[in-house]
Amino acid sequence: MAAREPQPRIALVMGDAAGIGPELTAKLLAMPAVADMARIVVVGDRRVLDQAAHLAGATLDLGPVLAPGEAPRFAAGKPTLLDRRALDPATIAMGRASVAGGAFAMENFRAALVLAREAAVDAICFTPFNKAALKLAGNPYDDELHFAADVLGYGGECSEFNVLDGLWNARVTSHVPLRQVPGMLSVDAIVKALVLTHACLVQSGVARPRIAAAALNPHAGDGGNFGREEIDVIAPAVEQARARQIAAEGPFPADTVFLRARRGDHDAVLTMFHDQGQIAMKLMGFERGVTVLGGLPVPITTPAHGTAYDIAGKGVADPTATHRAFLQACAMGRTRARGAKAA
Amino acid sequence: MAAREPQPRIALVMGDAAGIGPELTAKLLAMPAVADMARIVVVGDRRVLDQAAHLAGATLDLGPVLAPGEAPRFAAGKPTLLDRRALDPATIAMGRASVAGGAFAMENFRAALVLAREAAVDAICFTPFNKAALKLAGNPYDDELHFAADVLGYGGECSEFNVLDGLWNARVTSHVPLRQVPGMLSVDAIVKALVLTHACLVQSGVARPRIAAAALNPHAGDGGNFGREEIDVIAPAVEQARARQIAAEGPFPADTVFLRARRGDHDAVLTMFHDQGQIAMKLMGFERGVTVLGGLPVPITTPAHGTAYDIAGKGVADPTATHRAFLQACAMGRTRARGAKAA
Repeated sequence: MAAREPQPRIALVMGDAAGIGPELTAKLLAMPAVADMARIVVVGDRRVLDQAAHLAGATLDLGPVLAPGEAPRFAAGKPTLLDRRALDPATIAMGRASVAGGAFAMENFRAALVLAREAAVDAICFTPFNKAALKLAGNPYDDELHFAADVLGYGGECSEFNVLDGLWNARVTSHVPLRQVPGMLSVDAIVKALVLTHACLVQSGVARPRIAAAALNPHAGDGGNFGREEIDVIAPAVEQARARQIAAEGPFPADTVFLRARRGDHDAVLTMFHDQGQIAMKLMGFERGVTVLGGLPVPITTPAHGTAYDIAGKGVADPTATHRAFLQACAMGRTRARGAKAA
Repeated sequence: MAAREPQPRIALVMGDAAGIGPELTAKLLAMPAVADMARIVVVGDRRVLDQAAHLAGATLDLGPVLAPGEAPRFAAGKPTLLDRRALDPATIAMGRASVAGGAFAMENFRAALVLAREAAVDAICFTPFNKAALKLAGNPYDDELHFAADVLGYGGECSEFNVLDGLWNARVTSHVPLRQVPGMLSVDAIVKALVLTHACLVQSGVARPRIAAAALNPHAGDGGNFGREEIDVIAPAVEQARARQIAAEGPFPADTVFLRARRGDHDAVLTMFHDQGQIAMKLMGFERGVTVLGGLPVPITTPAHGTAYDIAGKGVADPTATHRAFLQACAMGRTRARGAKAA
């Protein structure tokens, strides 16, 4: 009889305590099957979690409760809690950006990254952070990707991905002025993005991911009439990726590539800039989307939506995207654990 | 008793005869109420129309049949046919770009524009053209907009719009390389686009159109961190338009502005470049979309889809978008006729 594969170890990070993060954490933990799918270590504070469970109308059956610095241990079917004892929920005003809310999220995330660095977890899933609150709390990073890379001591390729109903969106450029985008597109940058996208999809269980590269210009440049990046840069990059056994195709006109992908022709779309993909992904399902930080030594996932301060503390937050982010972390963490074992 | 307002006079142009245009023309004419909504003059060829009606399984009850050059006359509830006697359908191969198919579409369109120039029709609706076929037929224009402006002898502001379920999309730049877009955005260009969008929506019956301007950069530039066009160009243009009593708002991040519009916050979205709007509009309903050429002396509409050579001659073409394009032409033509009468 084959030995049962051990469950992936997932650090579940409680997000901004002034937003819906703790409520989503509690709702996720209360979902059937969740505690049996992974060995979960919730990173946060017992009091905040208890309050959130009360708000969610959930009864949580916790396993070991760890003090900061303690090595994780797990009990079957019962989430472990790393109780950082960092925040009394009575002291925080719900529904607005605050130092306390930002620091809670940031330090929970840092503790989870430390667990990953020590090979104590296989993946991380976090509930929403708020950029303004993170800044108030002194976070100097533009985004979670760079924060994570730094804590992990990682200097290689990594990127943010969006995932919706199994469709991935990756991008070559991100938070830069549009006027800088054409100059940042190189064969090398696009090949690297295709390679990284391929690796992340394989990690999440897609054996041979079919990746479509979007064009930059209208009508994919119309044979050079409306721009030459398709001819000079994107097509050669797709060719190079194909030579490396990556199932890349394109460039496809950006205004129809997501129609193709939605009907199932592609597993991922690589867009050349931020809004090219975000316009499509948000229209197709803002509420269900998942963000993946891929390429780092540990896979990290989070719901694509934010802290939703307007509904914080009301018990009405929808845990669908958090559940999907958790499942995504499990899929990627399982592959990673298997690889670590094989190595 | 008030006199009944006369119906608008619509030139219905048969498109590329190798595509689905004639079939859509016949299917539209066979729809209940269509022939009673407008005084229609079909511009094309009797033999092509007869064949298309047979293909569509429709029996057409035509009114007067005009020879080229004859002034239109109308019979109640029966479409007039301007029979250009230009194409024997037995001579054309369905499903591919040809000189004959392109010339048929182009010369039908030209004849309709001449009718408009002579004030014999109030609006034009055409079934799909194919750019490759138009080129084969010697058409030197990049798009129908410039062809129409030239035939009409019009040198003022005009633009292509996309309309879907009552939501309009206009754009400041169109068929140009993306790298040229930032340099083409000026306060003046955006104000002109807002003014034109406002006028076209008013013409189609929206009394006080609410227009959202999209941002250019990710996160609308994030307060200048990712680009300054929002601050330096788009916001001042919105202000100027508001000073002219146009209900303009924005700039809004491009990746959420269509979510706002779809839920009903805006009647139109002005995008800064081609794909910004096309990605969204095509995802929301490629098959139902209508294209409007607005700002010309005569309103012109057409379904947003193309000649669909792959299904030409099979009788399976969906006339939904053509019907919507026709209704749009009626709405705009009615306003124009009323204005001409009042003037």
